[in-house]
Amino acid sequence: MTTAPWRDPALPAAARVDDLLSRMTLEEKTAQLYGVWVGAATDGDGVAPHQHDMTADYDWDELITRGLGQLTRSFGTAPVDPALGARALALAQRRIAAAGRFGIPAVAHEECLAGFTAWRATAYPVPLAWGAAFDPPLVEEMGRAIGRDLRAVGVHQGLAPVLDVVRDPRWGRVEETIGEDPYLVGTIGTAYVRGLESAGIVATLKHFAGYASSAGARNLAPVRAGTREFADVTLPPFEMALREGGARSVMAAYTERDGVPASADPELLTRLLREEWGFTGTVVADYFGIGFLQTLHRVAGTPTEAAHLALAAGIDVELPTVKYYGEALVAAVRAGELPEELIDRAAHRVLLQKCELGLLDEDWQPPSPESVDLDPAANRALARRLAEESVVLLDNPDGLLPLAPDTRIAVVGPRAADALAMLGCYSFPSHVLTHHPEVDLGIEIPTVLESLRAELPDAKVTFTEGCGVSDPDPSGFTEAIARAAEADVCVAVLGDRAGLFGRGTSGEGCDVADLSLPGVQGALLDALVATGVPVVLVLLTGRPYALGRWHGRLGAVVQAFFPGEEGGPAVAGVLSGRVNPSGRLPVSVPQVPGGQPWTYLQPPLGLAGEVSNLDPTPLYPFGHGCSYTQFAWEDFSGPDAEIGTDGSYDLSVTVRNTGDRAGAEVVQLYLHDPVASVTRPDVRLIGYQRLELAAGGAARVAFRFHADLSAFTDRAGRRVVEPGDLELRLGASSGQVREVARVRLTGPVREVGAERRLRCEADVLPD
Amino acid sequence: MTTAPWRDPALPAAARVDDLLSRMTLEEKTAQLYGVWVGAATDGDGVAPHQHDMTADYDWDELITRGLGQLTRSFGTAPVDPALGARALALAQRRIAAAGRFGIPAVAHEECLAGFTAWRATAYPVPLAWGAAFDPPLVEEMGRAIGRDLRAVGVHQGLAPVLDVVRDPRWGRVEETIGEDPYLVGTIGTAYVRGLESAGIVATLKHFAGYASSAGARNLAPVRAGTREFADVTLPPFEMALREGGARSVMAAYTERDGVPASADPELLTRLLREEWGFTGTVVADYFGIGFLQTLHRVAGTPTEAAHLALAAGIDVELPTVKYYGEALVAAVRAGELPEELIDRAAHRVLLQKCELGLLDEDWQPPSPESVDLDPAANRALARRLAEESVVLLDNPDGLLPLAPDTRIAVVGPRAADALAMLGCYSFPSHVLTHHPEVDLGIEIPTVLESLRAELPDAKVTFTEGCGVSDPDPSGFTEAIARAAEADVCVAVLGDRAGLFGRGTSGEGCDVADLSLPGVQGALLDALVATGVPVVLVLLTGRPYALGRWHGRLGAVVQAFFPGEEGGPAVAGVLSGRVNPSGRLPVSVPQVPGGQPWTYLQPPLGLAGEVSNLDPTPLYPFGHGCSYTQFAWEDFSGPDAEIGTDGSYDLSVTVRNTGDRAGAEVVQLYLHDPVASVTRPDVRLIGYQRLELAAGGAARVAFRFHADLSAFTDRAGRRVVEPGDLELRLGASSGQVREVARVRLTGPVREVGAERRLRCEADVLPD
Repeated sequence: MTTAPWRDPALPAAARVDDLLSRMTLEEKTAQLYGVWVGAATDGDGVAPHQHDMTADYDWDELITRGLGQLTRSFGTAPVDPALGARALALAQRRIAAAGRFGIPAVAHEECLAGFTAWRATAYPVPLAWGAAFDPPLVEEMGRAIGRDLRAVGVHQGLAPVLDVVRDPRWGRVEETIGEDPYLVGTIGTAYVRGLESAGIVATLKHFAGYASSAGARNLAPVRAGTREFADVTLPPFEMALREGGARSVMAAYTERDGVPASADPELLTRLLREEWGFTGTVVADYFGIGFLQTLHRVAGTPTEAAHLALAAGIDVELPTVKYYGEALVAAVRAGELPEELIDRAAHRVLLQKCELGLLDEDWQPPSPESVDLDPAANRALARRLAEESVVLLDNPDGLLPLAPDTRIAVVGPRAADALAMLGCYSFPSHVLTHHPEVDLGIEIPTVLESLRAELPDAKVTFTEGCGVSDPDPSGFTEAIARAAEADVCVAVLGDRAGLFGRGTSGEGCDVADLSLPGVQGALLDALVATGVPVVLVLLTGRPYALGRWHGRLGAVVQAFFPGEEGGPAVAGVLSGRVNPSGRLPVSVPQVPGGQPWTYLQPPLGLAGEVSNLDPTPLYPFGHGCSYTQFAWEDFSGPDAEIGTDGSYDLSVTVRNTGDRAGAEVVQLYLHDPVASVTRPDVRLIGYQRLELAAGGAARVAFRFHADLSAFTDRAGRRVVEPGDLELRLGASSGQVREVARVRLTGPVREVGAERRLRCEADVLPD
Repeated sequence: MTTAPWRDPALPAAARVDDLLSRMTLEEKTAQLYGVWVGAATDGDGVAPHQHDMTADYDWDELITRGLGQLTRSFGTAPVDPALGARALALAQRRIAAAGRFGIPAVAHEECLAGFTAWRATAYPVPLAWGAAFDPPLVEEMGRAIGRDLRAVGVHQGLAPVLDVVRDPRWGRVEETIGEDPYLVGTIGTAYVRGLESAGIVATLKHFAGYASSAGARNLAPVRAGTREFADVTLPPFEMALREGGARSVMAAYTERDGVPASADPELLTRLLREEWGFTGTVVADYFGIGFLQTLHRVAGTPTEAAHLALAAGIDVELPTVKYYGEALVAAVRAGELPEELIDRAAHRVLLQKCELGLLDEDWQPPSPESVDLDPAANRALARRLAEESVVLLDNPDGLLPLAPDTRIAVVGPRAADALAMLGCYSFPSHVLTHHPEVDLGIEIPTVLESLRAELPDAKVTFTEGCGVSDPDPSGFTEAIARAAEADVCVAVLGDRAGLFGRGTSGEGCDVADLSLPGVQGALLDALVATGVPVVLVLLTGRPYALGRWHGRLGAVVQAFFPGEEGGPAVAGVLSGRVNPSGRLPVSVPQVPGGQPWTYLQPPLGLAGEVSNLDPTPLYPFGHGCSYTQFAWEDFSGPDAEIGTDGSYDLSVTVRNTGDRAGAEVVQLYLHDPVASVTRPDVRLIGYQRLELAAGGAARVAFRFHADLSAFTDRAGRRVVEPGDLELRLGASSGQVREVARVRLTGPVREVGAERRLRCEADVLPD
């Protein structure tokens, strides 16, 4: 018996898949286009609003005789011991392979937004914290570690990273994003993709595209954005993560833009993604997103119409479970209502990926480990390092921090003693364990209170909550005020509770009407400040909150964005001085709670001015963060110059740590384009470099700017570099310019395409 | 000596202008393209931020030897007696005519947003109140009256109406708009245009287009809107007012949309406006808007570039005074940098309009009246009628209103005893007199307090302010509480102070971060409610405010939108019962202060749902308003039917006043389109009819729906009627559906153009 061509590893993958498809029935091909969510709860657990009926309306044994495209979250649905789970997954895969004519297993996918969303797996800081660290290599290392853990238990695909660019910080999912600048999101997100893909895991870029721009920041509300904003702000991180990161999957967004749902948009999912960008991987639906075309967007009148729209637009795989892409699709083809070519197109992409993953090989074997540790010491060290780098010291006007070892400290606040205060809504404890109150967290998560006590054993630390995260009861204020009054310093640990769909103050579906601190926490802070005891505000949040009300009245402000399982020690380390804070804001911190939407990417008329009484100037600008040491910027080299619209230009600066302790500076490069054919942001980030400097140490950073980096979408929709003057501004934040290089671009307007440079690499030279 | 052809009234206007242009020098043609603001203050009076230097940098006597396009606001700049002003204007015009070679006077323009913005002229209710009245014939009558007054003093052009559709109620200029629905804005705005134009005044549609969509509701901030939203929401009122109203001028908006400033957008000002819509009038700049292209949008590097961009895009006339379109334009043409054809194109349009206005005729004479009354009794009666129709009774759960004649009434609030509380920011007193504190208002404006005392002479009425409009001092609460406690009912008169650029709580440049009542007025209301005395909340505002906090705790809520000089008696009449309230909300009244932007035009995902914890459902929906009588809706005729995509359909209903007093019902027709190729608003207004019904009286309203009214912009950018099911919902508000007709459109998708039906006319038949 000769081996069929599709089994032959010596043949090119595409040829193998062509052969395989030619042997498959319509049912078998269609079966590759959906997942099944075997372990899902049947009571509507909040993971899937609008689709509470997740009871199987299929016979599993019968279903898998056709084969199966995907297996949905066998780890991410309920707490399961990792090794047991891996063996159960392997068993399921063997059953699937055995049931079908071709012996092909499913692609197993899981969430991995901030670590593998599985019981006992490492909970890393959330993406907003990655943004604050400005450290792509470290994020890549984390991505690789996450990927290794996924691989170890038989998972093939991870539904991350989120590359949505924050457009309105009220949105609940801001914690899942990397920030409000597309360059920062793109570079950090790409690093994560590289890490995940380097471990053999299919990274899934989401949500493609526009989700973060929902009007009023209400989850899934219509997106108001023009095509230029879309092209220049929303799409660039995806382009970078595909081109430079090699991501192999893309998830279509739930949202519509200007009337067209992403999941039904062939212009987006096919013309741009595949024809222009050359993407060859799979496009998967966001959970239940195909059905939303009928039920929520109402651009389809029937389930079959919804399926047809999605498939034609370019969604290859229905997730999480088969509702639209199953029998209805088969029947539509049989009835002549749907071209079979659309099935073949999607099945080809799915099977090509399976081929690359080795799932078409005869020697395929799922891992079936005896034991698995998803939270080893190496992971925790990584989580710790990233947490430490991500804590942002917003203010420390009189040097109240670091705290002296023998201080009397009143720790107050609803986030000080709760392990869950460290985690975002896609962490396993927040996402899943909330439905399993009898199950332990699975990982050790020291709180800020515990960590601070450990960090400062000689300090006298008292604690009281003061209030809850979101409940309106102020009855705990009295004790909080009393504890504060007895102390040398009050550490107020405030912030969010991450949760899904109304269970949290941050997280998916947990949007806010304005940026006031949740519940009565603002009033608690007022009361603590009124005691006269110096207050250190520590924020553990999923979004920025308005802090103008307390400006000038706080001893220090420490902002952490859900810093993960090692976040407690990281924050305590900053308070004690063991850690020199080096995070920088990936989102602006506003003065007042209202006035959204706003981010720092504003043309002049979006900034403060005489034409409106509203001043949107943030209290702490994008890129801002303080240190316990000082940095001098020296020997700037950035002479006035003329270069062509295809030219490049070098600038460099030396940064010296002039203080007496080691610390890190983040050198940020912003572009200011004074005149263009369309309005442009006053400044935008085009490069950055994190520098770790010993006390007294120095390093020189050299950026090579290429004219491509000034490109934008012109009136005709072309991406162009226009001649004219530019300013390259080196700064310690978007609001703190240290050096300016003036460059004139000469020559013709130059149209640039997918070959253009996407980043401004920095070289770090020893001083 | 023969008369030159351009002077010959027997020749067609275009031929006369061709002849005239052929005789003019470049300087003379260019001089037709700008205005001069002779009377403007030189100290930056707030009318023109960013352009404080309004000192003449020209020699007036020299300048007018070239001729002059426009004279800017000789009445609207400083208080001047109308007859004196008219004679001064006539004198200036004669000097201009005498100085130039052709004897052509300028077009004199003025503001007339809610009446002629001139001293002693009638101050009508603001446009938002027109929207509340749902009475186009009455608005047309007002427009005609305003036009007559403008004509009487020698004015040719009025810079109104504002046809911006509210997209975010936080915007300061909401008071200047007609509301949040394009059909309401279009029909009411068109009525105003008809009135103004019927008096011979050139109506100026503004702001073309998109201004109301500024991000974060900050005045002039960038507009985020896709092309479909722009085509289906922003543009329709302009199209209707041009096609049906015959407006002869359009003002370019200050704002950009998606990077392209309207004032530099040939696609908007030329391709759409002239080539597609066939507009032949003039396009004027918003004040200083040409300069903003350089200074604020930064799409031009020099003044000449700004002028070139604007002229090429299609702005024919620079307002308010010559800065960019003068010598620089002449020099650019001479230097070969600017085609002279662009000057000719604009000059032709300006001169054609002057020809139509009779300004090229030899027998032209400016009016030079001995006396002028700009606020005669007929005007006041009109202002009164419109004010009365515009007051919206939002709630009256227990019938607290109308008040009994002998009630003890505690009137409280900063808006009760201030005449300016009745007026918007474009009224002469708010706009100009604020700079002339020594000058009296010029018109009689009874306050709510005075009017209530007059209306209820037997009532015992006390008054105290309680607090200021926007200052934070609560010291007046104590007395307010005391007065309320002594009374049978407390009438709390709260609201806005209209003003410009930070001087008001509503008005141009007076944007808000959220929809909380200004200052401490909300806290005052809390305190009054806490007394236990029934509180009637009377709002005199320029925008809707969030009232959810007091829902169920108020005796009644009366919403007036700056109701003009007769607004005091109108409001008092509603309180006393002399007037049966009949206004309906032209904007939604929200539950909570945050969560913008939001209006009722939402596809399903913009409405409340399980996917976000934020519920944007308004407290009082668009179209809502109560009455002192009751209406029964009877004998609905609207059978299920199929019509072609070019067909029409009749539906009708009888409304009977079943109460014991006369009153008005507004029958509203909404379209619900269940499935379309792009997402569609859940409902939108497509017709309405105000019905005045005697006690026991009835009338039948018949609407003829045409399929054109279901048209929208499809993915390809075509305006189409799609086949499929529709619901025509007759309601008393957008939230109160009374009858539903189900109509199926059959046949092909039909593309429709400028010939399509824009409105659903209603016939009123005696019962």
